[in-house]
Amino acid sequence: MVNSLRNIVLVGAGNVATHLGFALKNLGYQITQVYSRTKKSAIRLSSLLDTGYTTNINLLDNRADLYLFCLKDDGIMPVLCRASFTNQVLVHTSGTLPLSVFQGCSKNYAVLYPVQTFSRLKKLDLKGVPLCIEANNPDILATIETMAKEISGNVLFMDSDKRKILHLAAIFACNFPNHMYFLAEKILSESGLNFDLLKPLIMETASKILEIDPFSAQTGPAMREDQRIIEEHLRILKDLPDIQKLYTFVSDSISAYRGSPARRTNKNIPEKNE
Amino acid sequence: MVNSLRNIVLVGAGNVATHLGFALKNLGYQITQVYSRTKKSAIRLSSLLDTGYTTNINLLDNRADLYLFCLKDDGIMPVLCRASFTNQVLVHTSGTLPLSVFQGCSKNYAVLYPVQTFSRLKKLDLKGVPLCIEANNPDILATIETMAKEISGNVLFMDSDKRKILHLAAIFACNFPNHMYFLAEKILSESGLNFDLLKPLIMETASKILEIDPFSAQTGPAMREDQRIIEEHLRILKDLPDIQKLYTFVSDSISAYRGSPARRTNKNIPEKNE
Repeated sequence: MVNSLRNIVLVGAGNVATHLGFALKNLGYQITQVYSRTKKSAIRLSSLLDTGYTTNINLLDNRADLYLFCLKDDGIMPVLCRASFTNQVLVHTSGTLPLSVFQGCSKNYAVLYPVQTFSRLKKLDLKGVPLCIEANNPDILATIETMAKEISGNVLFMDSDKRKILHLAAIFACNFPNHMYFLAEKILSESGLNFDLLKPLIMETASKILEIDPFSAQTGPAMREDQRIIEEHLRILKDLPDIQKLYTFVSDSISAYRGSPARRTNKNIPEKNE
Repeated sequence: MVNSLRNIVLVGAGNVATHLGFALKNLGYQITQVYSRTKKSAIRLSSLLDTGYTTNINLLDNRADLYLFCLKDDGIMPVLCRASFTNQVLVHTSGTLPLSVFQGCSKNYAVLYPVQTFSRLKKLDLKGVPLCIEANNPDILATIETMAKEISGNVLFMDSDKRKILHLAAIFACNFPNHMYFLAEKILSESGLNFDLLKPLIMETASKILEIDPFSAQTGPAMREDQRIIEEHLRILKDLPDIQKLYTFVSDSISAYRGSPARRTNKNIPEKNE
């Protein structure tokens, strides 16, 4: 039985490893080693965390209590096959990989999936970030829960199937909105306008969600079914045909759900918007 | 020449009229009347602002200095045709209507377009909101600028053509991300998961934009070209074919720009994401 996990090897040196590594170090955990496939990343993170590193999976420190896998999903398998674990605790941070990916590799394994987007360049407070945990036995689950609760006040048990759904929804809540910001920036830059103009709008749109459900929060021509504006926008976008198509596609999707009878009962369609 | 505009009629009683009406009242402006096509809206806002109302355009208070039009775009024309103005200042708040919509209606007219999304149920501080102004003569422009600067510290001159582009970009920065939140909520609710799980992610995704450009901020399977995860997500969405199509469409758009040579020079593709 593992009661405490004080010595940790970070398997991966990307954005998640960086943010979790710092959080754990600040909580008094000992990061004993950083593994990365690329020397540059390994050196960068290990020097930031003031620890050793390796790019050779055979040289992984085998005395640690816990191995925290923060790799791209398709990077986990090759590492698992080459490293030899016995009863060390293996933990991955993936939204999509099942817990069972560790089966046969160790007697003790778990998942700690942070529902968050990580960029190395952007500081981040992990305290409110939902951490979804799962483990192959109750002892490990309790141990991981203790560690997770030190990192965040928002720890939940979630099985692999639900976690996968949550990860999919997170794509819609994060990557897709960010792509819309990117396209907005592109539209503005074509006309020499500054993206900063949209920053208060972006922040307000996100923070609305804390108070109002997304259906009630929606504004804009597609929600109002203002065909004149939609057609004018499509005309403006005629030289950016890919963005024009996306405008149509997303607007049609907004219109389709606007008319959904299931939602009409509590609709609150705004009279005027940005 | 108009030096000060202290008496204001609000033409419209929706979200924009509500937020601007409160801001102006708090600044010491006199809202003399609220006009709305619907009695319910007129009564609601006029009682909130403690002023008179009318639903009859012929009974519009003709002694005000300024008429602030906060209507749906296609609502402005009918109002203009029926009201008789001489040299009162007419101001609209639309992103897409040109300044010239007021031509022939009065000697003095202007635009004050707030780059923001307004919901009645969500409180909003207008101080940092970009206000784009334009007028048909320098005196009115100066007068509107004075008023706008009382409302917000972020006032810009912008002509009708650029304003229209900015409004289009605002759809991408606001309505489209909000629709993605709506779809995320829908995906979660199908599995009994709570939308609250995504709120820290949504806020972080938006606030990243204050520090990192949207291209560098992007994470996720489409950015990493992780085809295994994308296919798994499409499989999960097989019973929601409309959302499945949208997932493909937006992911393809992310992938297409990922490979854009113009952007590759300063790319910072994340190793791992939510």
